[in-house]
Amino acid sequence: MDVKHLSSFQDFSLEKLRKHNVFQSERFFLDVYCLAPGQAQKPHRHDTSDKVYVVLEGRCRFRVGAEEEVHGPGAAVLAPSGAEHGVANDGPDSARLLVLMTPPPEHA
Amino acid sequence: MDVKHLSSFQDFSLEKLRKHNVFQSERFFLDVYCLAPGQAQKPHRHDTSDKVYVVLEGRCRFRVGAEEEVHGPGAAVLAPSGAEHGVANDGPDSARLLVLMTPPPEHA
Repeated sequence: MDVKHLSSFQDFSLEKLRKHNVFQSERFFLDVYCLAPGQAQKPHRHDTSDKVYVVLEGRCRFRVGAEEEVHGPGAAVLAPSGAEHGVANDGPDSARLLVLMTPPPEHA
Repeated sequence: MDVKHLSSFQDFSLEKLRKHNVFQSERFFLDVYCLAPGQAQKPHRHDTSDKVYVVLEGRCRFRVGAEEEVHGPGAAVLAPSGAEHGVANDGPDSARLLVLMTPPPEHA
């Protein structure tokens, strides 16, 4: 059985946000992003893929379209196809996100 | 911004496992399943969709293909397309699962 424990994806990088793949198929990927304070994923868009962020630990500032909101553990944020989106950990604590993308973008 | 809090999906049913939709598009659905002790989703398969279960609370017995394993909070279980899969809460505690299906099955 293909089982992963989300608590096992804990490695952070000093350089930039660290992405850990949990599962991937032709239909989706599921990652854990580890963001140290100050790290971010710059706003970008995917015209034919939907993304969902779920906050596992910490708090992050999410941008979807023209909106920005800060959310903490248990929040699920939808970035639908075509919407510019990004996430930033304004600190002071580290943050971990479960990230779904479906389908995987062609450039990934 | 379309944000849902996973902690808000807490309603159980006496009759059978309760499914709450978090997000849905043509590409995926994300649900929270609430399983009281003794409740289950019978083994079934989707030939063209992948499913992932993430345990939010409690412990459940997962079946994927010929394998059965019990997993608790933080475990992510992949049921790839074509694999028979199901989940049962053997109890004694209630359980909540985050469930991804991509794409939504045609009969859903």
